[in-house]
Amino acid sequence: MTKPLGFEKPLGMRDILPESLARQRHLERALRQCIERWGYREIVTPSLEYFDTVGMASATLTDRMFRLLDKQGHTVVLRPDMTTPIARVVSSLYKDVPLPIRLYYQTNVFRAQEKEAGRNAEFFQTGIELVGDGSVDADAEAIALAVFCMRAAGVETFRIAIGHVDFVEGLLEETVPDETVRDQFRRFLYERDFVGFRQLADELDIAAEDRRRLHALLRLRGGKGKIDEARELTTNGKARRAVENISALWEALEAYGVTDALLLDFNLISNLDYYTGVVFEGYAADLGSPLVGGGRYDHLLAQFGRPAPATGFAIKMDRLMQVTSLAPSPEQPPVLLCYTEGRRKDGLAEAQRLRQEGRVVVTRLVRDQAEAALCREQADGEFICLTEQGE
Amino acid sequence: MTKPLGFEKPLGMRDILPESLARQRHLERALRQCIERWGYREIVTPSLEYFDTVGMASATLTDRMFRLLDKQGHTVVLRPDMTTPIARVVSSLYKDVPLPIRLYYQTNVFRAQEKEAGRNAEFFQTGIELVGDGSVDADAEAIALAVFCMRAAGVETFRIAIGHVDFVEGLLEETVPDETVRDQFRRFLYERDFVGFRQLADELDIAAEDRRRLHALLRLRGGKGKIDEARELTTNGKARRAVENISALWEALEAYGVTDALLLDFNLISNLDYYTGVVFEGYAADLGSPLVGGGRYDHLLAQFGRPAPATGFAIKMDRLMQVTSLAPSPEQPPVLLCYTEGRRKDGLAEAQRLRQEGRVVVTRLVRDQAEAALCREQADGEFICLTEQGE
Repeated sequence: MTKPLGFEKPLGMRDILPESLARQRHLERALRQCIERWGYREIVTPSLEYFDTVGMASATLTDRMFRLLDKQGHTVVLRPDMTTPIARVVSSLYKDVPLPIRLYYQTNVFRAQEKEAGRNAEFFQTGIELVGDGSVDADAEAIALAVFCMRAAGVETFRIAIGHVDFVEGLLEETVPDETVRDQFRRFLYERDFVGFRQLADELDIAAEDRRRLHALLRLRGGKGKIDEARELTTNGKARRAVENISALWEALEAYGVTDALLLDFNLISNLDYYTGVVFEGYAADLGSPLVGGGRYDHLLAQFGRPAPATGFAIKMDRLMQVTSLAPSPEQPPVLLCYTEGRRKDGLAEAQRLRQEGRVVVTRLVRDQAEAALCREQADGEFICLTEQGE
Repeated sequence: MTKPLGFEKPLGMRDILPESLARQRHLERALRQCIERWGYREIVTPSLEYFDTVGMASATLTDRMFRLLDKQGHTVVLRPDMTTPIARVVSSLYKDVPLPIRLYYQTNVFRAQEKEAGRNAEFFQTGIELVGDGSVDADAEAIALAVFCMRAAGVETFRIAIGHVDFVEGLLEETVPDETVRDQFRRFLYERDFVGFRQLADELDIAAEDRRRLHALLRLRGGKGKIDEARELTTNGKARRAVENISALWEALEAYGVTDALLLDFNLISNLDYYTGVVFEGYAADLGSPLVGGGRYDHLLAQFGRPAPATGFAIKMDRLMQVTSLAPSPEQPPVLLCYTEGRRKDGLAEAQRLRQEGRVVVTRLVRDQAEAALCREQADGEFICLTEQGE
């Protein structure tokens, strides 16, 4: 080969260099320690799954999945999330393990990128799944653990916003008769386009009272007091049950002592058709996109033949790294230990002695004292030189 | 969706369940601590690379690579190894970082499986690369570090076999005129088919002395004494230089004090056309396949436009797990803490207090003492129950 190879990587793929990776690993350790104490155990699933199993059931939209063709012509996906593979495991390898099951993961997931926009196609997540507990206390556990994770990861200023998919659903059903229009409203909320939402509400031919309720929905964002406001806004049925669910959840979260870090957001829609109950998103100061996302997904497990309620969340590690100052203690530059051939045995023994003390030691053979002097100039940290003439 | 989804995974893909993963993580930590003290720093590269860059340069045979087609019709590969991506990084992002560069990785790599044979298509490796040092001491460092890694990982009985690609090459050039026949000999050695090798040597129309030398090659496996035997077997040039290289290497390895764990194997061929000098493979008792493989690859970096000598090794984690008894201290079953709604605050506070002491605590809301009694039966470990009537 005469022409050098290129350095191109597939769109959105990147190298994580040691400085950055050391910080990521440090955060992963902090999160792992926190999560394990709540009884969650780590699992790894394959990087590649069949589209027809995990791909079909995933919350990720099909065109955002990294789809590929294998040699047999099957469509495979690089796992778009870990929730769906874990549902597969709970329903197959773990089918005889009694519920509830608590699992966590620290691994990479994939999203297809259509064009270069600085977005990662492969990124790391730390997440938990609590499968088989449909109680409000399970929702509270997931949210409280997310709060403890943020604290363990050194995020100083953050808020976790909590909503319920049935509140939006119920209110839309009560106020907007046309399903196509309801879907437009959902998309405005999903995209946080409140201007578009208001315009649509104003244009619609509906009762003034219903229009008022749609506008009021957008203001249902704040503390505990929003629960009463939400209750007044809805008459009966689905939305009302969602309010009572949130009310009970808030009480459980008060017992956890984490409500200072929380925010109610009754117009939160985290995903268009995946979550089935309480949803939440974690935001840090100065970061527009959520760094934690989660909620209740009570329909997924049934798709794998083991119906069970479930909740969980995922933390995006690259976003977390942007907002936390938590870092490993500054690395000491390695000791550079040079030796001439005649002092090799002494040099290597000394290096090993220092390593056993926990020091980081790089060794290098030098021809003579002149080369040793050159090495000394290059050393960032401590420099040790063993030549025939001694130290 | 009415029909449950299947549980199939692509060929050779597998889930790693918590019990097994906890052991793997424990081994990874032990290896990481050992490797970092020698001045190596961790790096991660993308799971997916273009076939035309990393795929072309990789030591992995093309038909063993996991090749896929992306949406744009490019052939991409799931990384077959970490050595080639690291060569890419050293030549691009790290092009201004002075050599030598020491990097390590703990991640998954991929191999295509043609048919189900219990072989993994995705498996985990821990490995190091030492780029930019062509000295015998660099070869010795890689081999000595492999020995220290085996010890750190609790492998009690193991041997690292050391060879040199130029010894086999030189001897074949001296004895077998036909390149096609030489290639047959190489393949016999690569596949460890000594019977086939001997038959071919017997059938060939070559001088009796050359036939004797080919047969003698197969016996060049043992301790330091084999160096003299190898030296006597070859007249001049390539093979002789390889012997002197091995001789100098052995001296350096004696300085490391690791020769007890080593074995010379002058007929070792680790890879058909990738390594350029010293090669080595680590074997453990009761395991037919090597769990460590490595060697010098001085031509790879030039393919990315930054010519540099290099050496390194990779440890296969699944094989390591088969031969080591090193395991994390047995997990205590989690404390199961049940509470009724009225004692929720007390229960959760107690759980958090225990977690801060380092205990693993799973909490569960129960309706009454009857349900609590059921929980008590399910608890593997300590059981705590807070109900209105007290503990």
